Amino acid sequence: MASEEGVIKIIRNKQVILRDYVSGFPKESDMQVVSSGTIKLKLPEGCEGVLVKNFYLSCDPYVKGRMTKRDPGSRYLDSFNPGSPISGYGVGKVLESGDSKFKEGDLVWGITGWEEYSLITGIATQSLFKIHNTHDVPRSYYTGILGMPGMTAYAGFYEVCSPKKGETVFVSAASGAVGQLCRPVCKALWYFPEGIDIYFDNVGGKILDAVLLNMRMNGRIAGCGMISQYNLEQPEGVHNLMSLIMKQVHLKGFLVFNYNHLYGKFLERVLPAIKKGKITYVEDVAEGHESAPAALIGLFAGRNVGKQVVVVSRE
Amino acid sequence: MASEEGVIKIIRNKQVILRDYVSGFPKESDMQVVSSGTIKLKLPEGCEGVLVKNFYLSCDPYVKGRMTKRDPGSRYLDSFNPGSPISGYGVGKVLESGDSKFKEGDLVWGITGWEEYSLITGIATQSLFKIHNTHDVPRSYYTGILGMPGMTAYAGFYEVCSPKKGETVFVSAASGAVGQLCRPVCKALWYFPEGIDIYFDNVGGKILDAVLLNMRMNGRIAGCGMISQYNLEQPEGVHNLMSLIMKQVHLKGFLVFNYNHLYGKFLERVLPAIKKGKITYVEDVAEGHESAPAALIGLFAGRNVGKQVVVVSRE
Repeated sequence: MASEEGVIKIIRNKQVILRDYVSGFPKESDMQVVSSGTIKLKLPEGCEGVLVKNFYLSCDPYVKGRMTKRDPGSRYLDSFNPGSPISGYGVGKVLESGDSKFKEGDLVWGITGWEEYSLITGIATQSLFKIHNTHDVPRSYYTGILGMPGMTAYAGFYEVCSPKKGETVFVSAASGAVGQLCRPVCKALWYFPEGIDIYFDNVGGKILDAVLLNMRMNGRIAGCGMISQYNLEQPEGVHNLMSLIMKQVHLKGFLVFNYNHLYGKFLERVLPAIKKGKITYVEDVAEGHESAPAALIGLFAGRNVGKQVVVVSRE
Repeated sequence: MASEEGVIKIIRNKQVILRDYVSGFPKESDMQVVSSGTIKLKLPEGCEGVLVKNFYLSCDPYVKGRMTKRDPGSRYLDSFNPGSPISGYGVGKVLESGDSKFKEGDLVWGITGWEEYSLITGIATQSLFKIHNTHDVPRSYYTGILGMPGMTAYAGFYEVCSPKKGETVFVSAASGAVGQLCRPVCKALWYFPEGIDIYFDNVGGKILDAVLLNMRMNGRIAGCGMISQYNLEQPEGVHNLMSLIMKQVHLKGFLVFNYNHLYGKFLERVLPAIKKGKITYVEDVAEGHESAPAALIGLFAGRNVGKQVVVVSRE
């Protein structure tokens, strides 16, 4: 796949393009799979980036936010550009590297394009992780339990919520990529006669409002995501915030990017648990770029069972 | 005023009574000043409480919450009983004490009744503080800057918000009892071109919603009170909670009762500042029990200028 001596391959690069900014609920037709693009399978002269062949693309709810038009700088992640490919977390193989941390043949996970081949440059290379364990667990797991959603569950639960033995924990969207990773560490209770000490909120809106009324004294809420709100023109109102005061609750919003330094510690804990079968992890795998738009849309209809992945190549 | 040898005085005890549970905006007519009651100026045999003559009564927004009917145990403070006097923070003099921490003649502040004389017993004696400094500052200050609101500002700002030099701080209801105590420690800015690091929220509702959009990365919000919501049948919705996630903001509700152990440290800091004139503190003083209902209602119409106090006796 890499360039042969003296010959630079220019090949087709199938892409999933954002047609135009989305408002409200996203539709498959907001995206388009195009095969018209090509890519030079060679890093530009002096480029310190990484040329990657993509294997797995990850469907994550936050991607919707980047499909909408935002004032530059007003939000934590910029909008995609209409006419350009969608980007998101993925797993791939390094074809050529101008970055000393990676070399040809390395398996990596991080932010990549929804396309066959991606040139990853600039700040995106800083959140590209090398995959050392390539035998005992499926590579696709690095889009989920061993990737960003896994780290999100870990950071949100252990670092943000400071759980103590015996506390009751409620996780919303517990079958999603983040939620199902919280389950091994929590009792999956849905009935809390004595209230909730820790709420890991992936949903926001009405569920958050209901949980607020049931928080216990000195409870903690990890604000991880609000999937119930992402497709609304205006976010819903949350009414029961007085509970935060009356129960001395700490609601802490967090972004997983700020916990990257804990990734090694996280793997040490989770990899053995997966190998021993102590963690059950479910994936919903769609096949090919053509299936990517429907897979992404499905997240917001609750169509996926387990972590939604798109496989675009197996080697 | 205390009992003379062998004679137990039974005297009139004017009281401000809650007529019935309040829903919506409280009115003066929800309360009634009655002079029909009497009190024995003698502690009951074996009583470990404190008999107090009240000097100053404090009008605080949280009192409204206790005037509404609540399910027992559902909130952090119980409802008042219709037909009984309102209670709240006040300053008074000990006439007789069955509690070894207090003796006849001590000046004290804490939860007392809206009446001339109160028998303070049980858990209420635990939040009764002895006033040591009785010369350099007005006694009424112990309903405000040197009492619960002062401690609230101190605990909320220093303990909950962990301010760092150079951070921008916004305090809502900055002319109220708590808000004006925050001012000496904050820049009183109302225009934040670069966003807000710390928000001390006394108001909730629409102000909170607007501030959420203007929080800076890693900002902190102290949830102290939500006066804009106390008279609504249903609390308003707050829409911009996604900002908590996108900016990694910590919203921490707190109750001042849990910071009582810091009261000595607080006094050491604030008393010298008051004596040196470094803190300007404004009181709005109403005269007599008869003026108490209007003084309390005025809080919710923004009628008071400075801390609202009712003086019911001067010695």
